[in-house]
Amino acid sequence: MTGTLTNGTNGTGPHKPPADLDASKLIIRRAESLKAVPVWETLQFGETPTDHMLICTYDPINGWSNPEIKPYGPLSLDPVGSCLQYATNVFEGMKAYVGPNGNPRLFRPSRNMKRLETSAARLALPTFDSSELLKLIKQLVLLESRWIPDLPKYSLYIRPTIIGTRPKLSVAASNEAMLYVVLSPTGPYFPTGPRPLSLMAVSETARTWPGGTGGHKLGINYAPALLPQQIAAKRGYDQIVWLLGEDNRITEVGAMNVFAVVGRDDGDLDVMTPSLDGTILPGVTRASCLELLSAHPQSSVLPNIPPSTRIHVHERAITMEELTSWSAKGQLHELFGVGTAVIVAPIGKIGFQNTDVIPLDHPEGFGPVAGALMQRLSDIQTGKWEWEGWSVELSA
Amino acid sequence: MTGTLTNGTNGTGPHKPPADLDASKLIIRRAESLKAVPVWETLQFGETPTDHMLICTYDPINGWSNPEIKPYGPLSLDPVGSCLQYATNVFEGMKAYVGPNGNPRLFRPSRNMKRLETSAARLALPTFDSSELLKLIKQLVLLESRWIPDLPKYSLYIRPTIIGTRPKLSVAASNEAMLYVVLSPTGPYFPTGPRPLSLMAVSETARTWPGGTGGHKLGINYAPALLPQQIAAKRGYDQIVWLLGEDNRITEVGAMNVFAVVGRDDGDLDVMTPSLDGTILPGVTRASCLELLSAHPQSSVLPNIPPSTRIHVHERAITMEELTSWSAKGQLHELFGVGTAVIVAPIGKIGFQNTDVIPLDHPEGFGPVAGALMQRLSDIQTGKWEWEGWSVELSA
Repeated sequence: MTGTLTNGTNGTGPHKPPADLDASKLIIRRAESLKAVPVWETLQFGETPTDHMLICTYDPINGWSNPEIKPYGPLSLDPVGSCLQYATNVFEGMKAYVGPNGNPRLFRPSRNMKRLETSAARLALPTFDSSELLKLIKQLVLLESRWIPDLPKYSLYIRPTIIGTRPKLSVAASNEAMLYVVLSPTGPYFPTGPRPLSLMAVSETARTWPGGTGGHKLGINYAPALLPQQIAAKRGYDQIVWLLGEDNRITEVGAMNVFAVVGRDDGDLDVMTPSLDGTILPGVTRASCLELLSAHPQSSVLPNIPPSTRIHVHERAITMEELTSWSAKGQLHELFGVGTAVIVAPIGKIGFQNTDVIPLDHPEGFGPVAGALMQRLSDIQTGKWEWEGWSVELSA
Repeated sequence: MTGTLTNGTNGTGPHKPPADLDASKLIIRRAESLKAVPVWETLQFGETPTDHMLICTYDPINGWSNPEIKPYGPLSLDPVGSCLQYATNVFEGMKAYVGPNGNPRLFRPSRNMKRLETSAARLALPTFDSSELLKLIKQLVLLESRWIPDLPKYSLYIRPTIIGTRPKLSVAASNEAMLYVVLSPTGPYFPTGPRPLSLMAVSETARTWPGGTGGHKLGINYAPALLPQQIAAKRGYDQIVWLLGEDNRITEVGAMNVFAVVGRDDGDLDVMTPSLDGTILPGVTRASCLELLSAHPQSSVLPNIPPSTRIHVHERAITMEELTSWSAKGQLHELFGVGTAVIVAPIGKIGFQNTDVIPLDHPEGFGPVAGALMQRLSDIQTGKWEWEGWSVELSA
């Protein structure tokens, strides 16, 4: 190690501050041979990495290394690395779509970048300039654009990840890290058309709690759910709806935010989702649904919802008792989950204390509100319908 | 891939069940050159790996691979591996000591093995026969016995770890895993003699909660504490005491179980620690302290505690209000944390709502009960004092 420019970092002297993430320093090392893309219809979610990944590392002396796009491959990690011992892992979920002119598009990517910054801060991981990361992600997606399936309801899933790599067993914040982004093409959540999900309500195991980390996108929020999810599947349920507190407030469904649509006598609709109280992930799809619902009918945003139907949007606690009561009175028009992977998924049943909470039957799977949101979000994401600059077109 | 015996697994045909962990299949691949052991007095906790590590892997077809002892080195992990995305990491902390005859000794290792089994089960990781793992750990410790410092209060720290390695982005239990054990020599927690810890009481951030995972030894219990620990350090506190609930019950101190000693008017002592309600780690040192305290004075277990001093042991909730009240009345004789790394650490102060809870002053750092437990545990761990078979001698 003699030169300052050959060590893969920033060539800074000992008195310079650690380097920030810098997209202009990107090094691209292409794979020697490219894989054939699979037959899209055979895709399973998150099982088919593309040819390349983005990676860079942080240490407290040099700061962020020059980012590199290189062939997809395994990471080399110390057995006592912080991410393997103390779960200092944060991630994001995003998608790239093919637009009408063939250019790739991202959906509100700055929101994912800001959330990744706050997630990393919550685990005391090194900070970074997320606008630089977004530039890098755009370059990676453009390089891999042949991996974006040009089929309705298909997309290229993007998984930015930061892991703590401090190689010491003492329990302390990780002052070393690795940031990487991998891509995986993905098809529709329901390949054979929407099928309402059945949910098992769980209160004895907590996925999240006041003062906990449910408001951030951290690996640690997912691990506790794996065993309960196995139990739910054995009992014939698709997913879990997580309840919290003595009043059994609903928080999330599987790894999705959840919405309820309740009808009023005058035909108006109350559409509600749990508030962001620190136990709920501030989902990008959740926020987008709230904005689209609130814009109706002024901008005729929602297809197939008559402008005469007024929609009252609420972020508020929703208890199982309320859901049960609305269901019993026939007022529970719809339940659905929303998230980046699924976009919108109808819910057909919640099993709770030996009774079933069931919204009105919608033979096509989606109720009118869920269906309208699904269609409008898909239109925006694929650039077929312009709305508030949410869809960001990439061009080489 | 033609032979069944060359693939590093078990050579089982497709119809055989997945292999269980089998210590008799151990392969030992020694390092070509061994490192010089450091000057023990310069050791920092968990920063000096020994020459070798133990490793084996699990996949659902073959089961557990033949375990291998090989040179310490990095792991090769898929970027979307479960442990990096969804925090499927569990671990244990144990120590090896040099006994009077020079043979290594482990302290109640079966307890750690059983806890590792339940931790893995909580995260739906593959199961394993922990008695086989213990055999393997014994072989690794014997191979590395020159790394056990033969100095008072020094030991060889043992870190068994299991990580989920399923290389898929879908959120599901990891049906692939890696099990490994690394070793690191370690010195006394307080190199210059016991110094009572100052604690910051934290209630607004929750490390654990009812229905959560605090009763298991999982990586996910540690990540949420790193940022609050940084904040506490900036405010001049050594560690955090985690409070829970509206009555501010104390749960754990840093990563230790906690004990309070309260004096009665007649000279008897009440020694209490929070109950195992699912929010408290069932510590091996905690259990050992409870057993030693309960045996006093019948077996004269505790040095320097007069047999006439009766000790009443309680596992019960302890609220900050109680601690404050006992402190104000001069009844709070001692507070201390216990755990594998520290064994016993005196607590000198808890900062809580602008007041300080302070136990009686003990000029030597340890109060009588903490000091007696520290001495007796150390005597047992190093084989100087036989008690209930807790210290397990290893011989080649």
